[in-house]
Amino acid sequence: MRSGDVAALARLLTLVEQGSEQAVSVLEAINACTGKAYVVGITGPPGAGKSTLVDQLTTLLRKGRERVGILAVDPSSPFTGGAFLGDRVRLQRHYLDREVFIRSMATRGATGGLSHMAGSVVRVLDAWGAGIILVETVGVGQTELEIMNTADTVVMVLSPESGDAIQALKAGLLEVVDVFVVNKADREGADRMATTLKSTMNLAESPTGWRPPVLLTQAHIGEGVDGIEEAIKNHREALTASSLLSVKRSERQRREFAGVFKAGVDEHLNNKGPQEGRFADLLSQVAKGEVDPFVAAWRLLREGQPFREWKEEP
Amino acid sequence: MRSGDVAALARLLTLVEQGSEQAVSVLEAINACTGKAYVVGITGPPGAGKSTLVDQLTTLLRKGRERVGILAVDPSSPFTGGAFLGDRVRLQRHYLDREVFIRSMATRGATGGLSHMAGSVVRVLDAWGAGIILVETVGVGQTELEIMNTADTVVMVLSPESGDAIQALKAGLLEVVDVFVVNKADREGADRMATTLKSTMNLAESPTGWRPPVLLTQAHIGEGVDGIEEAIKNHREALTASSLLSVKRSERQRREFAGVFKAGVDEHLNNKGPQEGRFADLLSQVAKGEVDPFVAAWRLLREGQPFREWKEEP
Repeated sequence: MRSGDVAALARLLTLVEQGSEQAVSVLEAINACTGKAYVVGITGPPGAGKSTLVDQLTTLLRKGRERVGILAVDPSSPFTGGAFLGDRVRLQRHYLDREVFIRSMATRGATGGLSHMAGSVVRVLDAWGAGIILVETVGVGQTELEIMNTADTVVMVLSPESGDAIQALKAGLLEVVDVFVVNKADREGADRMATTLKSTMNLAESPTGWRPPVLLTQAHIGEGVDGIEEAIKNHREALTASSLLSVKRSERQRREFAGVFKAGVDEHLNNKGPQEGRFADLLSQVAKGEVDPFVAAWRLLREGQPFREWKEEP
Repeated sequence: MRSGDVAALARLLTLVEQGSEQAVSVLEAINACTGKAYVVGITGPPGAGKSTLVDQLTTLLRKGRERVGILAVDPSSPFTGGAFLGDRVRLQRHYLDREVFIRSMATRGATGGLSHMAGSVVRVLDAWGAGIILVETVGVGQTELEIMNTADTVVMVLSPESGDAIQALKAGLLEVVDVFVVNKADREGADRMATTLKSTMNLAESPTGWRPPVLLTQAHIGEGVDGIEEAIKNHREALTASSLLSVKRSERQRREFAGVFKAGVDEHLNNKGPQEGRFADLLSQVAKGEVDPFVAAWRLLREGQPFREWKEEP
C-alpha cells in the first residue's frame, strides 16, 4: 500500500472497518507513517451541493499534483440515500485517477462507533500517502459533528434553500466550522444568507484569532471553488503558525481513544466484548458481588499506579 | 457503624460521597455486609406528595420494626428546591428514631456521576443494617431514571394535577415502574387518572409477568399507604420467586461499574484524572501519536487476555 497500490489500500481499509484484531495489526503497522495528510471535513445539509464541491475541489487539488483521499460518510436516512449515491456516481470521473481514492461508509445502524471508525480510515488514507483527505458528511447532527472532529479544517456548505441549517449552527455547531460556503450563489437569497453569516461571524468570539470566511460559490460550474482551496490553505497556515494544529490533533487522538474505549465498555455490558482479560474478569466479579462496583472502576482506572492506602483522618 | 452507630454511619457516608480513595476503602470494607437491604425507589413529579408518602411509609415500616434508610436526592432545579427542603423538615419527626437514617444528596452540578454515587450510598446504608432503603427522587428525567435503577422496586407517585407526567411515562419510563400511586385521591380527576393508568398497564407486555398495580392514596391522612407497603411486599416476593431479584441486582452492579468507569475516562480526558497508571500512560502515548487510538483502546480492554496475532488471510 505504501508504494501507492490502490488495491492493497482497499483491502486494508476493509480490514480496518471491520474493527477486529486485524484492524489492530494494520493500524499498528501504519502508525509511524501517519500524520502527514491534511484532513478537511466537508459538511452541510442534504442538497447543498457538497459532493459537487468535493468533485471540483478534487480536480483542483489534482492540478497541484496532490494525492487525494476521499471518505464519504453516507447518511443514515433512507430518504436521502438515493440522491447521495447518485452524487457518488458523479465522483467516478476520478476513479480512473490512481492518485485519488474514494471510500464510502454507511452510518446506518452505526451507534456511536462510526466517528471512531472514520478516524481509523483517515489514518489509513494518510499512510497510503494522501496529501489531503476530504471527509464528506451530510447533516448537522451529533454524529456529523463527531466526524468533523477528525478534520483539521471544517468547511460547512449551505445553499440559499438551507435556511434552517443556520438555526442549527447557532445552537452550537458554529465553533467547529472554519470556512462557510454559500453554494448555488446564483439563486435568490444567497447574498442575504452570506451577509447573515458574516454578521454572525463578526459577533463570534474566536479564541484562535481565526474568523471563518464566508464564500459564495456555484459548484456546478466550478465558480468560486479556487476560493475554498485558498481558504483551506490560509486556515492551515494559521493553525500551523499558532502550533494549534498539533494541539488539535493530540486532543483528537485522545478523544478517539476514549471514545473507542467507552464503546468497548458498552460492548462488554451487552456481553459482546471479549470474555477474557482484566476488564471482563472485574465485570464478572462485580456482577457476583465479590467486588464493589465503585471500587472496581476506581482500581482499573489507576492500575499500575502506586495506590495509597486509606488512613484514618486525624 | 455495623453496631448501629448513626454518627459513624454519617461520617462514612460523607467519605463515600467524596468519591476519593477513602471511599474506596470504605466500600471495600463493607462489601461483604451488603446485599441484605431491599431498595425501594420513590419517584414522580414535584408536588405529587412523595415526601409525605415516604414519611408515612417509614412510620408503617417502623411498626414492623424494620430499620429504615432514606436517601433523598434533591432536585437540581432551583425553583423546586425550596418546597423540597420544606418536605425534608417534615421528615424530621423520624430524626429522634435511631433506627431511621435520612440522607440528602443534591443533583445540582452533578454530571452523570450522581446516579453512581447513589449506588454507593445505598450500599453503605445496607451495611449499616437497613432492612429497607427508600430512595426518593423528583422528576421523570434521565438522571432520575438512572437513580431508579438502583432500586429493586420502583414506586411512581402521581397526583391528579400531574397529567403531563403520564405522557413522559409513555415515552419510556413505563417499563421501570413497578407500582403506581395516584395520590391526593380526594381531588377531582384521581379516579380517571387511575383508570387511564390501569388500561395502559393492561396493554403493556410484561416479560416478568408482574403487572404494576395502580393504587389510590391520600398520603396526608395516611389513607392507602398500607396498600403501598403491601404492593412492595408482593413485588418483592414475585422477584424472589422468579429469581429475578439477583439477576436485576447483578446487572445493576455491572452497569454501575461501567458507569463509574466511563465517568472516570471522561475525567482523564479533562485532565482531572490521576496522572499515573496504565490508562494515563496510554492516553499520553496516544496524544503524542506513539500509539494508534483504536489500538490503545482495543489493547486496554483486552489486557490480560491472550492476544492472537494477525495472520494474513489465505
